Amino acid sequence: MQIYGADYYPEHWDESFWNRHIEIMKEYGIDWVRIGEFAWAVFELKEGEFHFELFDKIIKLLKDNGINIILGTPTATPPAWLIRKFPEILPKDYNGKVREFGSRRHYSTNSKVYREYSARIVEEYAKRYGSIVDAWQIDNEFGCHGTTYSFTEDDRKMFIEWLKEKYGTLDNLNKAWGTVFWSQTYSDWNEIGFPINTPTFENPHQMLDIYRFMSDSSIDYMNMQIEIIRRYSDKPITHNFMVDFMDIDYRKMAKYLDFVSWDNYIATKEYDPLRQSANHVLMRSLKKSPFLVIEQQPGRVNWRDVNENYPGEYLNMWTKQGYINGALGVMPFRFDQIRFAAEQYHGGLLDYAGRPTKRLEMYSKVKSETPNVVESKKEVAIYFDYENEWIHRINHVNRKFRYWDNIIEIFKAVRKLGYNVDFVFADDDLSEYHTLIVPYAFKIGNEFVEKIKLFKGNVYMTCMSGLKDENNWIVERAPHMLIDEFGVEVMDFGAIDKSKANILNADFEVDYWMDELRVYDGKILGTFDNGMPLFVKKSNRYYLASVLNEAGWLNILSRTLEPKFIGSDVEYSEAKDGIYILNLKNERNNIFIGSQIIELNAFELKVIK
Amino acid sequence: MQIYGADYYPEHWDESFWNRHIEIMKEYGIDWVRIGEFAWAVFELKEGEFHFELFDKIIKLLKDNGINIILGTPTATPPAWLIRKFPEILPKDYNGKVREFGSRRHYSTNSKVYREYSARIVEEYAKRYGSIVDAWQIDNEFGCHGTTYSFTEDDRKMFIEWLKEKYGTLDNLNKAWGTVFWSQTYSDWNEIGFPINTPTFENPHQMLDIYRFMSDSSIDYMNMQIEIIRRYSDKPITHNFMVDFMDIDYRKMAKYLDFVSWDNYIATKEYDPLRQSANHVLMRSLKKSPFLVIEQQPGRVNWRDVNENYPGEYLNMWTKQGYINGALGVMPFRFDQIRFAAEQYHGGLLDYAGRPTKRLEMYSKVKSETPNVVESKKEVAIYFDYENEWIHRINHVNRKFRYWDNIIEIFKAVRKLGYNVDFVFADDDLSEYHTLIVPYAFKIGNEFVEKIKLFKGNVYMTCMSGLKDENNWIVERAPHMLIDEFGVEVMDFGAIDKSKANILNADFEVDYWMDELRVYDGKILGTFDNGMPLFVKKSNRYYLASVLNEAGWLNILSRTLEPKFIGSDVEYSEAKDGIYILNLKNERNNIFIGSQIIELNAFELKVIK
Amino acid sequence: MQIYGADYYPEHWDESFWNRHIEIMKEYGIDWVRIGEFAWAVFELKEGEFHFELFDKIIKLLKDNGINIILGTPTATPPAWLIRKFPEILPKDYNGKVREFGSRRHYSTNSKVYREYSARIVEEYAKRYGSIVDAWQIDNEFGCHGTTYSFTEDDRKMFIEWLKEKYGTLDNLNKAWGTVFWSQTYSDWNEIGFPINTPTFENPHQMLDIYRFMSDSSIDYMNMQIEIIRRYSDKPITHNFMVDFMDIDYRKMAKYLDFVSWDNYIATKEYDPLRQSANHVLMRSLKKSPFLVIEQQPGRVNWRDVNENYPGEYLNMWTKQGYINGALGVMPFRFDQIRFAAEQYHGGLLDYAGRPTKRLEMYSKVKSETPNVVESKKEVAIYFDYENEWIHRINHVNRKFRYWDNIIEIFKAVRKLGYNVDFVFADDDLSEYHTLIVPYAFKIGNEFVEKIKLFKGNVYMTCMSGLKDENNWIVERAPHMLIDEFGVEVMDFGAIDKSKANILNADFEVDYWMDELRVYDGKILGTFDNGMPLFVKKSNRYYLASVLNEAGWLNILSRTLEPKFIGSDVEYSEAKDGIYILNLKNERNNIFIGSQIIELNAFELKVIK
Repeated sequence: MQIYGADYYPEHWDESFWNRHIEIMKEYGIDWVRIGEFAWAVFELKEGEFHFELFDKIIKLLKDNGINIILGTPTATPPAWLIRKFPEILPKDYNGKVREFGSRRHYSTNSKVYREYSARIVEEYAKRYGSIVDAWQIDNEFGCHGTTYSFTEDDRKMFIEWLKEKYGTLDNLNKAWGTVFWSQTYSDWNEIGFPINTPTFENPHQMLDIYRFMSDSSIDYMNMQIEIIRRYSDKPITHNFMVDFMDIDYRKMAKYLDFVSWDNYIATKEYDPLRQSANHVLMRSLKKSPFLVIEQQPGRVNWRDVNENYPGEYLNMWTKQGYINGALGVMPFRFDQIRFAAEQYHGGLLDYAGRPTKRLEMYSKVKSETPNVVESKKEVAIYFDYENEWIHRINHVNRKFRYWDNIIEIFKAVRKLGYNVDFVFADDDLSEYHTLIVPYAFKIGNEFVEKIKLFKGNVYMTCMSGLKDENNWIVERAPHMLIDEFGVEVMDFGAIDKSKANILNADFEVDYWMDELRVYDGKILGTFDNGMPLFVKKSNRYYLASVLNEAGWLNILSRTLEPKFIGSDVEYSEAKDGIYILNLKNERNNIFIGSQIIELNAFELKVIK
Repeated sequence: MQIYGADYYPEHWDESFWNRHIEIMKEYGIDWVRIGEFAWAVFELKEGEFHFELFDKIIKLLKDNGINIILGTPTATPPAWLIRKFPEILPKDYNGKVREFGSRRHYSTNSKVYREYSARIVEEYAKRYGSIVDAWQIDNEFGCHGTTYSFTEDDRKMFIEWLKEKYGTLDNLNKAWGTVFWSQTYSDWNEIGFPINTPTFENPHQMLDIYRFMSDSSIDYMNMQIEIIRRYSDKPITHNFMVDFMDIDYRKMAKYLDFVSWDNYIATKEYDPLRQSANHVLMRSLKKSPFLVIEQQPGRVNWRDVNENYPGEYLNMWTKQGYINGALGVMPFRFDQIRFAAEQYHGGLLDYAGRPTKRLEMYSKVKSETPNVVESKKEVAIYFDYENEWIHRINHVNRKFRYWDNIIEIFKAVRKLGYNVDFVFADDDLSEYHTLIVPYAFKIGNEFVEKIKLFKGNVYMTCMSGLKDENNWIVERAPHMLIDEFGVEVMDFGAIDKSKANILNADFEVDYWMDELRVYDGKILGTFDNGMPLFVKKSNRYYLASVLNEAGWLNILSRTLEPKFIGSDVEYSEAKDGIYILNLKNERNNIFIGSQIIELNAFELKVIK
Repeated sequence: MQIYGADYYPEHWDESFWNRHIEIMKEYGIDWVRIGEFAWAVFELKEGEFHFELFDKIIKLLKDNGINIILGTPTATPPAWLIRKFPEILPKDYNGKVREFGSRRHYSTNSKVYREYSARIVEEYAKRYGSIVDAWQIDNEFGCHGTTYSFTEDDRKMFIEWLKEKYGTLDNLNKAWGTVFWSQTYSDWNEIGFPINTPTFENPHQMLDIYRFMSDSSIDYMNMQIEIIRRYSDKPITHNFMVDFMDIDYRKMAKYLDFVSWDNYIATKEYDPLRQSANHVLMRSLKKSPFLVIEQQPGRVNWRDVNENYPGEYLNMWTKQGYINGALGVMPFRFDQIRFAAEQYHGGLLDYAGRPTKRLEMYSKVKSETPNVVESKKEVAIYFDYENEWIHRINHVNRKFRYWDNIIEIFKAVRKLGYNVDFVFADDDLSEYHTLIVPYAFKIGNEFVEKIKLFKGNVYMTCMSGLKDENNWIVERAPHMLIDEFGVEVMDFGAIDKSKANILNADFEVDYWMDELRVYDGKILGTFDNGMPLFVKKSNRYYLASVLNEAGWLNILSRTLEPKFIGSDVEYSEAKDGIYILNLKNERNNIFIGSQIIELNAFELKVIK
């Protein structure tokens, strides 16, 4: 990897601590830090009175010691004076309740006045440090804590502007939203608002536009900052994305960034390595290029119900997992552990007394093991669309179904067979992949329909695909424009609970959904327990009329994807320069490749060139 | 039955679709439609600018084709311009939060300005179509989505007026409400409000009056519309009631309607045929006359967490179930399936491409099987009172107890023994029934106490009966004025969890409640597991000191109600013109009547004259 | 005991009932009543128009009949006219929502206007009855229903005043609160508010100060009343504390009271005798002197989901349990059972018809069995601190851990070994105890650190102790200033779920927390299942690195605390005048003391002198 470092908060310490911190960094090979992203009040404690002394000093000290700097803009934390002066900056949640000052992210991206104050502080940062620092981070974790969504009067006004831009006329909007239903037809733009605490279900077309608008609002707010920085700095700009996060269309947001960064925290009760890996791969897939883990969970965090500790070996392994999935760097959050404030229980690379920990030691060992940036071979493509995630949230046939979770089931199956995955978006080039999976893809635009038709290899498509259009209307006949391609038509459908089914006469578990298929010219390979067609093949096109779990997918995919290795609890990746195998267990393990045994120590990364 | 039809939404389609729709209707024997009940914005997209063209045209087309019309007033969906102009129309929920525009039923029935605008649109409907259409529906599903309850300033003012009317003086109110407790005594009418988000329990007398007032508000708002329509039309007027719905006193509301209609949707996770039947019977019992199923679930709905699909045979069977319980018609909701809006996943008789479905086919077969209106013999009466349901909700001994659910347990037991049930209200005539059950009847007015005393046949009364007065006070001695009649006094009581008991030395399960009885001159037939009296007989009067489930009731009732048939999964009904037997299973079934076997095909209805 | 009586509400009855009530009181030995604490509107139904007639009359009647009176001030129930006039009196909950009129405790203790009106009514009470009544109760159950906490503008202003008093300068506050984190630094006092509905975690130092301030607000409001009463009366003043209640620092509040009272209600689903006992002991420990059970659950209550009834024998036993734990009296709530209002289902000593119950009979039998006030020997001290309870609530390592519940586990273990417990506070004298337990004591001030060091007997300290300072910062090295004393340092820590561990090679269950200990000079007596030290002894100092349940504590404590008896389901207490043994079972039971058998009838209290 190219970036070894940690997130650092010099403002949390008396400056007498700084030299000791930097000494430890140098001793342990840390030569990148990210700083400054929550420090607005350090610079501007009172309106318009700017103080640069602290950061001037620490930035010089870091650079003098050969440490590279990523500087974060501090807009995730508007200071108290600003909120007291303009309380309308505060966001309102979906219950219409104001989210008050006292933690972070207490602003609406659409607040006019907040945009002005944000622009000013960002310009101050950019002017002063634009030529000194090595990279930029915009704000911090857009959308964290549900803050993508805000429903203030400023938000409403901007939503109306966004709608005018999109639809041109009210008549277009009324048609697209089907407002004739329940007399929702608008006769004036200003009648449009947010469906807060409505007696019953919202308009699903309006909801999809709300999700789009809110995602665009974050992107637009970010771009306002990027434009300012570009005026003063030619350094690369990034933003830290989040794990399992779907509120913002990261594909769209990533287009404006020089590289993608993300914050790798364990999102499940137990550490689930292939789920974290799916997130790494999604991040790599956004720009189809290397990404930075700009925050890496070091051990214990503070925001779970039960915050367990992890021995230092885990940080070592997590870092190697980022590496084999294409990371250009991994930076533990955070270098210094603080004794105060909302994150006082969050672990760091130092301990509360400022002493280096086992975690720091184990992290520093990674450097020699991860020399380059790994470039995976292209093998299996899984179609993904943030907007489809939003459609899945809105009115529903089965409220229990989760889009991303069920895509991860497929991802895991493919990875356990030893194949690399890329998530592909509608405008991606598919020519290098040999297999394409199109799961639960409610809306498939014409562009991607054509790519499916032209795809040379095997294509697997599932239920809930090609069932909706751009406006979240149901299509007349499904799968839309792909009936001939797959040889089936979805005549009707309904939700199901877990039930038995058979594929090639073996038992499978299906869940969530049942298509009622009319099969035109496919071969039926499996049935539901009521005898209706479940799995249909037409040449190298496969249609699955329900939802399978990982085991089910592993079973059906293994008929066209020969397993590359036999074994478990490893992550296996064929890259352009060799095979990378990471033991995910904290004990000895082995796998077989053909008749060859590969033995691995606890958490060992082995590279076969 | 007399009405075969479906609910239809011509405004959701370009008029080029209408002819095809009507052709299909005629082909499948549909000669009634309900239309118009959400179409306000079609008529009045801008304030005061009325457009009748669309409905003029479709109404003519339908009538020209021999299709009868029920026209719904559109007040369940006030349009956007009206809400934007008068946001005070919006209801406030019990948390004091406004329920915003964006779905339906977003109005308070007590809004002064809304009543004015409602009157105007209703008058427009009535004037124009009063002599053309065949029946009227007022509004749509009063109280749906919890909208019986609203707590705006208009609601508060009307509540105070209602209280003045009821109590005359504040002193009367203070006494009835026991306001001396916790210093709640009012010295001015305007001090009275709603107990929103109170630190602890509300005044139970005030709560009962709030439930009464809110129910009356819907009735009063409805009557305002009825009066207008009667000025222009002599056609029958109805309103569509709901399944398992207790927020409005339907008995009181039904008095103002020409006939009762209701919307038959499955309210439980699994289809529970006798629960639906209990609802049919409750609807029949409101006016003791035939009712219309004005909306019938066709298959899949859209508002559940898991919206399963039902094969078309179910619609056939559901329709026959309505029939044998006294329906004068069944109308599936809806004829046309739409691709957009909040109900896009709701099934219809057509599919998304406009093609007839199996459901439509199966529905059309019903006509020949259901020639008349079935008139059940009067056998068993179960006492019911909407106000008692409200009393059960308010402060409680066992918060887990549900009045209607536990009455359904009794209903099922009686039906499984082959007897017809009528729900009877305090002012009903009991002379034709041979058995009377008085379950969980907290408040029994003097009028009904006398009817119990005079009843010739067996009377079963349970715990929680005769324990409260009109104002929701506990009586001094219980059961009120019936201690001599049943030979027992309730000395004390408390909640219990499920526990064992014995009746005639067999094991029973009791739940929820335990009376501590003093037995004066009854014979003890059962005991709790602590040895206290549970079931006491005095001549043909039975008192049960706890709550039994269906199996328990079936057991004790079968000693006085000889089973009319032996078998299961059928609905059996003796009517004036024969015995109706409906197989509730989608497979073959049989029952025995004496030694005679009755064989039934899947979902078959057999009539023995 | 010295006080036998009941809570009585003469204002709930027509005065024609009073003589009968008093006759029954005298017949059953009731010679104390508490009255008046919710009667504001009886005295002042309209602003400034005072009516004393009712209470003048009943107070004279009671005194004439030799019945002593505790008079409660009525400020828990501000009347309707006052709230209508000044709605700003109403509290706001932590969601920012107003808690409306309609139950009780609907006021903020910091409301300026409410303090004025409170002072006036209290002065009226004190002037008129100061020389007549025998004791005073201030208000009723401060903090009940979550009302310790209110977040109105008055609250905010008073909070700022409180902070100014505490910190002097904003700079001190900013440092103590670590506001540099997330740019929360304040530049003006008026920027400070409450963190309502914040996007994510609040500032933990601010939260601790909020808890302190809210507790102080109740105390301050109470003291305002006490000062007024003292001007007119020399009778003792108390307040009724609550079971398992931690929102107010009762230790601090108790300093201003002449004696402690509390309301003994069962707080768990099943009656858990030693939990109630822990509450008795906590009450006794507040002033290290006898306390009054001013409200005793009589049987059924009304505020649970499932309100079961208890046979009268229970009231007898509960009263004796209060007695052996040092009560100077027990007063069932309430004498008269009412048929109306929010507590209509709450049991009393009379029934709904005004007849004496078995409960009254069983209560009256207690008098002869409980002649004196029991004075327990001092044996085991458990360190307790209300502020530590608050620290446990705030940001967390394991959100499932409950401070008081886990202290009760220890309390039960000690009591089952036959030893008395006192809860000790930082400024208590420890010289008479032979064992000290310091459990889960996040913050231990220097004063108590010294007491630990000087303690002669065995000291048991646990994880989560000495880890925080006064401001809720984590200390640099833990346990703070006690590393040498216990021979261990906590190097790191994390949450755990239930898991196996061993102590002296026996299996134990540990839960919630795991310290990673460095052991300097202790002897390791137990390990976690990963082999890390769990239980360490250095001379007579024991450190436990996790949380044990009752069984675990009983096991490790029994090595230094020889069991005084063998048996179960009794409460055993060595007092200065003998051994008190209460059978907690409603059936025969026995225990052994050495070889001597002690036989006990159902719920029997035996005293061995």
